[in-house]
Amino acid sequence: MEYKILSENLNEEKIKSLSPDERIILCNELRDKIISTVSKNGGHLASNLGVVELTVALLSVFDYKKDKIIWDVGHQSYSYKLLTGRFERFDSLRQEGGISGFPRISESPYDRLDTGHSSTSVSAAVGLARARDLKGEDNYVVAVIGDGSLNSGLAYEAINDIGQKKSRMLIILNDNEMSIDRNVGGLSKHLANIRVNSGYISAKHSTESFLKKEMPVLGKPIMKLMIAIKDWFRFIVYRKKPTIFEDLGLLYYGIVDGHDTEALIKNIDAVKDLSGPVLLHIVTRKGKGYKPAEDTPSDFHGVSGFDIATGKISSCGRSYTSVFGNKMIELSMKDKKIAVICAAMAQGTGLVDYSFKFPERFFDCGIAEEHCVTMAAGLALEGFKPVVAIYSTFIQRAYDEILHDICYMNLHVVFAMDRAGLVGNDGHTHHGLYDLNMFCSMPNMTVIAPRDYKSLQRALEYATGTVEGPCAIRYPRGSEEINTYSQDMSEPSSASDDYSDIIMPYTAYDKGNEYCIISIGTSFADGQKAASLLEEQGVLGKHVNLALVKPLDSKVLNDITSGIRYVFTLEEGITEGGAGTYISHLLSTDHEVTNIGVNDPVIRAASQARQKEIAAIDGRSVADRIIKTIKG
Amino acid sequence: MEYKILSENLNEEKIKSLSPDERIILCNELRDKIISTVSKNGGHLASNLGVVELTVALLSVFDYKKDKIIWDVGHQSYSYKLLTGRFERFDSLRQEGGISGFPRISESPYDRLDTGHSSTSVSAAVGLARARDLKGEDNYVVAVIGDGSLNSGLAYEAINDIGQKKSRMLIILNDNEMSIDRNVGGLSKHLANIRVNSGYISAKHSTESFLKKEMPVLGKPIMKLMIAIKDWFRFIVYRKKPTIFEDLGLLYYGIVDGHDTEALIKNIDAVKDLSGPVLLHIVTRKGKGYKPAEDTPSDFHGVSGFDIATGKISSCGRSYTSVFGNKMIELSMKDKKIAVICAAMAQGTGLVDYSFKFPERFFDCGIAEEHCVTMAAGLALEGFKPVVAIYSTFIQRAYDEILHDICYMNLHVVFAMDRAGLVGNDGHTHHGLYDLNMFCSMPNMTVIAPRDYKSLQRALEYATGTVEGPCAIRYPRGSEEINTYSQDMSEPSSASDDYSDIIMPYTAYDKGNEYCIISIGTSFADGQKAASLLEEQGVLGKHVNLALVKPLDSKVLNDITSGIRYVFTLEEGITEGGAGTYISHLLSTDHEVTNIGVNDPVIRAASQARQKEIAAIDGRSVADRIIKTIKG
Repeated sequence: MEYKILSENLNEEKIKSLSPDERIILCNELRDKIISTVSKNGGHLASNLGVVELTVALLSVFDYKKDKIIWDVGHQSYSYKLLTGRFERFDSLRQEGGISGFPRISESPYDRLDTGHSSTSVSAAVGLARARDLKGEDNYVVAVIGDGSLNSGLAYEAINDIGQKKSRMLIILNDNEMSIDRNVGGLSKHLANIRVNSGYISAKHSTESFLKKEMPVLGKPIMKLMIAIKDWFRFIVYRKKPTIFEDLGLLYYGIVDGHDTEALIKNIDAVKDLSGPVLLHIVTRKGKGYKPAEDTPSDFHGVSGFDIATGKISSCGRSYTSVFGNKMIELSMKDKKIAVICAAMAQGTGLVDYSFKFPERFFDCGIAEEHCVTMAAGLALEGFKPVVAIYSTFIQRAYDEILHDICYMNLHVVFAMDRAGLVGNDGHTHHGLYDLNMFCSMPNMTVIAPRDYKSLQRALEYATGTVEGPCAIRYPRGSEEINTYSQDMSEPSSASDDYSDIIMPYTAYDKGNEYCIISIGTSFADGQKAASLLEEQGVLGKHVNLALVKPLDSKVLNDITSGIRYVFTLEEGITEGGAGTYISHLLSTDHEVTNIGVNDPVIRAASQARQKEIAAIDGRSVADRIIKTIKG
Repeated sequence: MEYKILSENLNEEKIKSLSPDERIILCNELRDKIISTVSKNGGHLASNLGVVELTVALLSVFDYKKDKIIWDVGHQSYSYKLLTGRFERFDSLRQEGGISGFPRISESPYDRLDTGHSSTSVSAAVGLARARDLKGEDNYVVAVIGDGSLNSGLAYEAINDIGQKKSRMLIILNDNEMSIDRNVGGLSKHLANIRVNSGYISAKHSTESFLKKEMPVLGKPIMKLMIAIKDWFRFIVYRKKPTIFEDLGLLYYGIVDGHDTEALIKNIDAVKDLSGPVLLHIVTRKGKGYKPAEDTPSDFHGVSGFDIATGKISSCGRSYTSVFGNKMIELSMKDKKIAVICAAMAQGTGLVDYSFKFPERFFDCGIAEEHCVTMAAGLALEGFKPVVAIYSTFIQRAYDEILHDICYMNLHVVFAMDRAGLVGNDGHTHHGLYDLNMFCSMPNMTVIAPRDYKSLQRALEYATGTVEGPCAIRYPRGSEEINTYSQDMSEPSSASDDYSDIIMPYTAYDKGNEYCIISIGTSFADGQKAASLLEEQGVLGKHVNLALVKPLDSKVLNDITSGIRYVFTLEEGITEGGAGTYISHLLSTDHEVTNIGVNDPVIRAASQARQKEIAAIDGRSVADRIIKTIKG
């Protein structure tokens, strides 16, 4: 589609010289481009539609070639990408070899920080601002962070530290007004209070709309003066209370309508030169401008595609996520001691139904992975069995708490890690490649990698019923089909009372002794594929799959591999220090063991299947590697 | 020494029935016992002397057998231990087989949570309170947390979450008034403002002293009413601003003199039954009652022993810590791009002198390891070379930030990890056993384990001068002597321009091919000892030490071990996924490789030398293991 303003040639100077009317057109065109691209490629819709005006305003005020604009999480950076030299390539969004759905310093010099995980923006901005001051330079540093991301301890640590050295920087608090639901913390209530007290909801009473209206008459110097006396003004007219941000040493300004580009420009321009750190509070609406996304923004947070006309989202149907959520409901009906904890991801982890069925035993602690884990320790000390549901990539945030607050005390806490392994189009920041490494090295830990839905259900029964200490269960993004090579293969007898289907290695293929593949969890499918390809070449061996990764019985493992020289462990996780090395420690020295896993975790956006090929952990690559090893 | 009140028989009922005068005597006796024990055994003095009255007050109000009192960090729990059944064993404090310097659930049913790392108390207390509510029980839950610990994101996440479900619990903010120095964040300034605004400093104006004075007349119901209207009272009389805690949904009360036992008892008693979470702000003085510790509390934070009469602290002289601090000064004089970051540990990491010499390039971010790392990313993106100095055990807090914000972008950030390996009398929560596992598996990471002071100095030169991406350097607690078997051994040629003394494996002993030990860093001494013991038994092999652990040249490693069947890696770190497994991946399959390291990280207080024996990584254990392996 041809646009009037949005184009590859829309450079910095042109953006700055647009008229207010042209800016409205530009915002419409950005929305159109984002909606049409995401409907095809999938991606983050609601968050991107929420910051179109903000992005145009920031690029109208700042010099993006010199100034540093940091997008927290980065799942709202599409407009920024479209306006900073990536319009023509935008159709490749989230595709292999295409542009990333997140800021990437390797993609553009104007992406200032690789992001993906939440709440890093303020810390990094503090570093950028201090570096600027040390060098005696004068560029601006801006961090855009959502209200949800402010729940994270990392963001608090950064804001707390800003108060110390008064570097000039601007934090834009992008408040979605979505945080008023039952799953929010004290900060969200505080933000709601600010909105109410400031009269924001009745818009016309806000300081900003007053300032805006008077702007043409008063001119910029007066406007700055007015903002400077605004604390007093607000104190008298609107509310008595300073915000938490002022308590922590920031200058606070707001609230600005985040969909009023002109108000944003004027307010940003007015506060940008204040010395010291400033927080500008704006309110936006997720999904703004696309009704289906405005109505159900959670559904349009991350989508794999949708029909623009109807708003119907492409669904993948049953998934490991839904199997987990349903099983937790079933288990919690029988066992009153089970409680479930998540970190602002009830939808992503399949727990929305659970949260309605068991509101008293469901705890959404916000984006606060560390607290989720240590809070679970408290529940476990009192005899509960907390199940902490956090994506594999985000559980990395709680490494120390898992070790120090759970494992050392041998507490019965279950970690349910969705999106373990390669995650596809979100790219490398979202892969769950470190969980096996992390959990296998921790004391008292049971580690389970189910091979399919049934095995996930059984693992959850086993983990909440039989296991007595900490237990980690990892399962991949998507559906069983992606990870199952063939339904024809014989399956282990399931539902035995002794959980032998989980505990015992499952010999899935056994036709010779030229090699033995020991696959972990859903690498089952790749192991089977490799065995089949090798058989075609007349190379006959054995394939054993593990659901229980730790603890393992050394004798059982050595019996299985007895008489087989070449053993290959296979996992969808980092090779170094992964489950394979744990298995190697248990195997006798008669074997030549090769650990196959992901060697370089920086595998960029592509389908999950393609990423396995890139990592050389797919069936064909494994077969090739086995041939190469055993044939010398 | 015989005490009048403090004894093993001082049970719960007796504590509760003490008169105010007897409580004064008890506090004096607790101080005496703590000072005399720590002067001999070492331990945390200043923090323990600060909470004597608080501990007596808590045990006078609460039923410690039923109620849950959680001590954040736990380095202030000595009085609590003395009053909850551990008086007679107290002389064994921090000794092998003795009582721990931190709360341990395995030691007493009244230690409710294993602690050691900062800021876990509120999270755990939230879990305990929610569990109580789910069970319909009615015990009290109390978390005692210092102002420094409140800088950590984990504590903020917990306080933010409390606002959601209004479980009854009491947080006691133990404000040391020490936080007003140049190294503090916004929260500390906020606390200082509260103290000033509340008139705390002039004591007689405080609400509490008013309430206290009126107490006999008014009686408890009136007192409760008064506290209930205190918000309004305070609003009118003392200050206009609510605290950050109220913004986050807590009820805030204070300020109470933390050394006035009677005031503490009355205030705690008055607020304990309020529904919902309450924060009671008390002010204490670190080191209270022992003048040398009051004068220089930092010096008496953790001591190895001191002379009571003079206050002279036993010093171990030169240490890895001081070598690091001095080298950083030297390097920073030459290289203007070096900046140093620490997490409230300027003294512990040897950076006090540095902070005075380079105040503009020194950043103490408070107990905020995550922010330290991501802030370093910002500095590195602008061309600085940040050196992040955090103990090995505490860097675990920043696992995700190191991976996501540093390694994926291949930023030049140096991690200087003091207290790597076994740390001695602080016990298992403080061991630094996971850094090699963590860092070896991360992409782009250079990992160095210096073998001695000289090697640490060279590693720092190499890391800040030659290395281009992230680099981790680990070194042990204490002095070179502890980790050096013999000064007579030939040393690698040092100070070569190509850093071959760091990069190349150092063949320290080479008399045969029956075995090859590959030791990591300061395990050098144990490797030499093992070789010497084996030689006595006529078993002749080779010992090679690595300073550079990653990246390693596979060819160089295989040349060194060529013709030697039995290879033993040796490291002071967790075996599973440690440096040994990284080396194993690089060695050819001709060898039988055994990874020797720490298998169970829960090694309790003892000397570092004894802990090595317990872990079986000392020279003699290694020699025995080699004999056993090669002789079958």
